Amino acid sequence: MAKRLIPTLNRVLVEKLVPPSQTAAGILLPEKSSKLNSGKVIAVGPGGRDVAGNHIPVAVKEGDEVLLPEYGGTEIKLGEKEYHLYRDEDILGTLHH
Amino acid sequence: MAKRLIPTLNRVLVEKLVPPSQTAAGILLPEKSSKLNSGKVIAVGPGGRDVAGNHIPVAVKEGDEVLLPEYGGTEIKLGEKEYHLYRDEDILGTLHH
Amino acid sequence: MAKRLIPTLNRVLVEKLVPPSQTAAGILLPEKSSKLNSGKVIAVGPGGRDVAGNHIPVAVKEGDEVLLPEYGGTEIKLGEKEYHLYRDEDILGTLHH
Amino acid sequence: MAKRLIPTLNRVLVEKLVPPSQTAAGILLPEKSSKLNSGKVIAVGPGGRDVAGNHIPVAVKEGDEVLLPEYGGTEIKLGEKEYHLYRDEDILGTLHH
Amino acid sequence: MAKRLIPTLNRVLVEKLVPPSQTAAGILLPEKSSKLNSGKVIAVGPGGRDVAGNHIPVAVKEGDEVLLPEYGGTEIKLGEKEYHLYRDEDILGTLHH
Amino acid sequence: MAKRLIPTLNRVLVEKLVPPSQTAAGILLPEKSSKLNSGKVIAVGPGGRDVAGNHIPVAVKEGDEVLLPEYGGTEIKLGEKEYHLYRDEDILGTLHH
Amino acid sequence: MAKRLIPTLNRVLVEKLVPPSQTAAGILLPEKSSKLNSGKVIAVGPGGRDVAGNHIPVAVKEGDEVLLPEYGGTEIKLGEKEYHLYRDEDILGTLHH
Repeated sequence: MAKRLIPTLNRVLVEKLVPPSQTAAGILLPEKSSKLNSGKVIAVGPGGRDVAGNHIPVAVKEGDEVLLPEYGGTEIKLGEKEYHLYRDEDILGTLHH
Repeated sequence: MAKRLIPTLNRVLVEKLVPPSQTAAGILLPEKSSKLNSGKVIAVGPGGRDVAGNHIPVAVKEGDEVLLPEYGGTEIKLGEKEYHLYRDEDILGTLHH
Repeated sequence: MAKRLIPTLNRVLVEKLVPPSQTAAGILLPEKSSKLNSGKVIAVGPGGRDVAGNHIPVAVKEGDEVLLPEYGGTEIKLGEKEYHLYRDEDILGTLHH
Repeated sequence: MAKRLIPTLNRVLVEKLVPPSQTAAGILLPEKSSKLNSGKVIAVGPGGRDVAGNHIPVAVKEGDEVLLPEYGGTEIKLGEKEYHLYRDEDILGTLHH
Repeated sequence: MAKRLIPTLNRVLVEKLVPPSQTAAGILLPEKSSKLNSGKVIAVGPGGRDVAGNHIPVAVKEGDEVLLPEYGGTEIKLGEKEYHLYRDEDILGTLHH
Repeated sequence: MAKRLIPTLNRVLVEKLVPPSQTAAGILLPEKSSKLNSGKVIAVGPGGRDVAGNHIPVAVKEGDEVLLPEYGGTEIKLGEKEYHLYRDEDILGTLHH
Repeated sequence: MAKRLIPTLNRVLVEKLVPPSQTAAGILLPEKSSKLNSGKVIAVGPGGRDVAGNHIPVAVKEGDEVLLPEYGGTEIKLGEKEYHLYRDEDILGTLHH
């Protein structure tokens, strides 16, 4: 039943990654320590335009792990799943192992 | 008697979809659960212009199911029916089954 | 004695249409029901310019029936008649039977 | 002794027309009735520039009767006479008999 | 000892003209009557640029008598003399006998 | 476990340099004295675009020592290390011995 | 130990000139009299860009004596010396003997 969303313009649909509260070995992580506000890119819009009419593609792509700003982002529920919608320029960077 | 509205510039006329409060099998859905602020596009304007004079067509089209922002939208009554008017850039995305 | 006004730039002179408070058959219409904030275009300006100097003609024309925003519009009395002056981009759409 | 002012850029020097408080036949006009905030153009500036550097001439000319906004306008006394200075884009329209 | 100032960009250095409080024949002028906020242009900057990079020369020149806005202007003391610095676009017009 | 961040657009990832509270010879430095808000550039984004669509590269590069503004900067924890993210135009200058 | 700063973009590093509180002949100058908010240019950035991407060089150069605005300017300590950082467009003019 859940619908699929294709964002408009330079909007980016992100599923937030909830960091583990314990390490693999089961040690409880201090509450604030490893809380990285990050998420996975689910879908991106076709891109926007600058004032001179040039097409500006979205800088991140589906599957990227991205660092999110502390504030902003529109909460969206599709079926039982929760997502957040950001503007491309508000995404802080891409995370790499 | 109801009149037909052709929006100006990049305005989009939308009829909001009121989600069923029960599933097909009659189970009452929790109030907040599946409330997706969505609607169907009834009519779109001819598009706008950027500051350099380039014509910018509207990104969504008649019949599209669209995800609407929580706020904004101008309420319009045409005859007995209620619609909402949005600017194209405020529509969050298109919904697909 | 009443003077004629030619609006400047992309201004539009509108005469508001006051909707009948009764149907043709005399049934009193509920106060809020059919109140469509609409009007007839009396005169339009020569159009404006975008920042790049391109001439932008007015989107509506004399005789059009237009949907007006709830707020805005400058009240103008020419002789005994009352008009309202809008900027072209504030007019929501054109109404068609 | 009164000096002559040549406005700069797209400024327009206007002498306000004070509407007669009586009709020709001497009938006292209700205070608010025919108060049209209008004036005669005395002098105009050379015009302004848009951000792309294009020269934009002033839309009204010396001798025009113009409709003025309710607010704005800089009061200027040249000798014993009182004038008002407006920006071209704030003038609402030209009045014609 | 007093230093000479060359304004930057489209700034204009003005020496305010203090209007005589009496006419030539010695008649005391009512305090508010002929107070024209005017001054003489002492020096002008090389001019500014619009956003498209076009050079925009200053519209007034050294020696011009100019009409000044009621507010704004940066007070500057060079030696014992007092001047005011304005941006070119804030000067209302040039005064001519 | 710590992830590597590639900033987006013209963002710059900086590791703040904490100035020694003592001189090499062990003399305690007055608290406010040598506190230079500086840091080392760890990573830079691909650069931004101006409104006309021109690509604007980042002005500083990896390894530069930079002078940071007193306010602004987004605090980021990658693993156990703390970084700050700035926009390129907010970095005040580069420091050289 | 003091480091050298190269400003970014169109920033200008200035060392404020503190006017003598006495004339050469030792006469105490009234506190407010000759206080000219001026300084010497120590270093300038490479210049900025306008929105159309054109490079805009800094208008003042190293060694110039400049008139500074009353407010603004970022205070910077390099070693024991105090400097102020301004944006090029905020410098009011250059001073000449």
